[in-house]
Amino acid sequence: MSDPRQTPLVRSLPSTVPFVAPERLEAERGVTFDARLGANELPFGPSPKARAAMAEAVEDIWKYGVADMPALRGAIAARHGIAPEAVTVGEGIDGLLGTLVRLYVAEGDAVVTSDGSYPTFNYHVAGVGGVLHKVPYRGDFEDPEALVARAAEVGAKLVYLSNPNNPMGSVHDAAAVQAMIDSVPEGCLMVLDEAYTEFAPASSRPEIDTTDRRVIRFRTFSKAYGMAGARIAYGIAHPEIAGSFDKIRNHFGVNRIAQAGALAALGDEPWLADVVEQVARGRDRIARIAQQNGLTPLPSATNFVTVDCGRDGDHARALLAALTARGVFVRMPGVAPLDRCIRISVGTEAELDVLAERLPLALRDLGAG
Amino acid sequence: MSDPRQTPLVRSLPSTVPFVAPERLEAERGVTFDARLGANELPFGPSPKARAAMAEAVEDIWKYGVADMPALRGAIAARHGIAPEAVTVGEGIDGLLGTLVRLYVAEGDAVVTSDGSYPTFNYHVAGVGGVLHKVPYRGDFEDPEALVARAAEVGAKLVYLSNPNNPMGSVHDAAAVQAMIDSVPEGCLMVLDEAYTEFAPASSRPEIDTTDRRVIRFRTFSKAYGMAGARIAYGIAHPEIAGSFDKIRNHFGVNRIAQAGALAALGDEPWLADVVEQVARGRDRIARIAQQNGLTPLPSATNFVTVDCGRDGDHARALLAALTARGVFVRMPGVAPLDRCIRISVGTEAELDVLAERLPLALRDLGAG
Repeated sequence: MSDPRQTPLVRSLPSTVPFVAPERLEAERGVTFDARLGANELPFGPSPKARAAMAEAVEDIWKYGVADMPALRGAIAARHGIAPEAVTVGEGIDGLLGTLVRLYVAEGDAVVTSDGSYPTFNYHVAGVGGVLHKVPYRGDFEDPEALVARAAEVGAKLVYLSNPNNPMGSVHDAAAVQAMIDSVPEGCLMVLDEAYTEFAPASSRPEIDTTDRRVIRFRTFSKAYGMAGARIAYGIAHPEIAGSFDKIRNHFGVNRIAQAGALAALGDEPWLADVVEQVARGRDRIARIAQQNGLTPLPSATNFVTVDCGRDGDHARALLAALTARGVFVRMPGVAPLDRCIRISVGTEAELDVLAERLPLALRDLGAG
Repeated sequence: MSDPRQTPLVRSLPSTVPFVAPERLEAERGVTFDARLGANELPFGPSPKARAAMAEAVEDIWKYGVADMPALRGAIAARHGIAPEAVTVGEGIDGLLGTLVRLYVAEGDAVVTSDGSYPTFNYHVAGVGGVLHKVPYRGDFEDPEALVARAAEVGAKLVYLSNPNNPMGSVHDAAAVQAMIDSVPEGCLMVLDEAYTEFAPASSRPEIDTTDRRVIRFRTFSKAYGMAGARIAYGIAHPEIAGSFDKIRNHFGVNRIAQAGALAALGDEPWLADVVEQVARGRDRIARIAQQNGLTPLPSATNFVTVDCGRDGDHARALLAALTARGVFVRMPGVAPLDRCIRISVGTEAELDVLAERLPLALRDLGAG
């Protein structure tokens, strides 16, 4: 029963969680995961410098943070060669997306994304009463031309592209992304989610231009920086757009320890470079394991490999269930035809050993091994 | 210039921060604060158990948290003798208030609060286009009868009461608060902000009844638990109300280290009891210092003492500025007649030594010492 005092919009919404945590699955299914390969986390964790900074920051946890985070925003700005005013920091990209949709999307406003792309973006759009228009992938890629065409057609306030893409691991080159930015229709803002960009070639990143009001880009400390549980990420945009987050955001919402960790993490580029190499090796190993089992790994510019299981969604869901039952946590795309795949995050060597051992068993469970 | 693509509501909003951080004041005013007595923080910090749990949780920061936080919600529920389903956890009371207003307040809906009470609540109400109706304090107390009368008159969706009250430090007894709950008009939800309740006598807390749909209560780890920078707090309400936060909240928004710290903090009741005693001694000392300088401390059920400076708001503002210039960070109420006061948080003994030394100097700066 919904509370009749709540807004008509809220009463119309389901009570959902975009993702079920592995700990929750363990409790519900009575399994223990020996390999945590489903949430695109980074098991190598953050830089030792970031860990030390976070441990030290525990001592100051009694203090509120600083709402505008000048040190962190300054360091982010210096890294990208932009002004701090072009940077807004929030509680993960999820938190920033939640604020963004409130800034741009009134009830009934159109928003465009790809069918099968990031569910939490869709969740936040629904939460403000936006009307989602979904464009199919072109093969395993989001389709920039179709996205902007649909945005123009429906008069969208926002059009979303993730580059690299989750859940498929595919990436467009910078020219294609820049062409999309250049063709965003008047009245629409392009949301460029670059959560995985550190794993991707530099040639996939268009130059940052904070004089351009057509795009906002999001980066995170959850992926390559190994701090998913810290909830800290940032947006890069024209200063007037970045600054507008201050109108409605939870100003003191970013944990102080997370701020300290993020600042220190930015100062350890060798660690980041090493992580990116480790992840590349892990992707190669996942691809080999998939191939050894007759499955087809898709090329990936992220810290996961999306594996084509060669049949339909029911087959992939059955394989995912078999892997879950055998203690391997993976996830998969939610929408056909992407759902012929499962998505396997790079784990530790030991976790990938578990994958190598259990994937053939899971396939055999299906009578397909 | 506002972005014409943003919603009409957002375009109408100013870009503001409800509170200026002391670090920001230091940078802007060129001062260094020797006594940080303005943000109602707890300089004694969290329980050593909570510190240890947070330091340990740094090692797991690469993992996302669990959206529904079963361990923490279970511990909170056990503490209050309620069901975990009656508990919702969020990024500080500020974060929870931000979600609450989105659940209940559509553009143009009425909300009632006291004139001079918590500015961040007002900020969030404005952020969803709610229309604030403000009731004057009765003396230095929020006025429950006037609040519910106004709520009935304007058909308010929410009516806010903080007990104990910030910024005045005053507290109502449980019977008065229960009487307010019992008289909340149909169609309205009472928001009972109990951020400071651990410092107040038990006789100020009405029994928790999660079958009652008329009220939601908020508690925090920012004040008596000494974790302001962690951003973690909880709401207690009928399970259908608490559960409705899941419709729009940032499910993975609470930092994992904060969750670990909160859970451990709940397990150290002796520390909490000790903190409450230390704070009571600190309040007594602030009251004595105020009296020694010819000022009038108001009774306080919080970790701050609101001090009547005996004249008007201009006088109190001048005293606050003089204290700031002399390295003492304090804040003050924003609205007459409350703004005849300054608000001094309990600090360490050393910080209160600084206060004792500099308050007479600051008064002399005004030519009033």
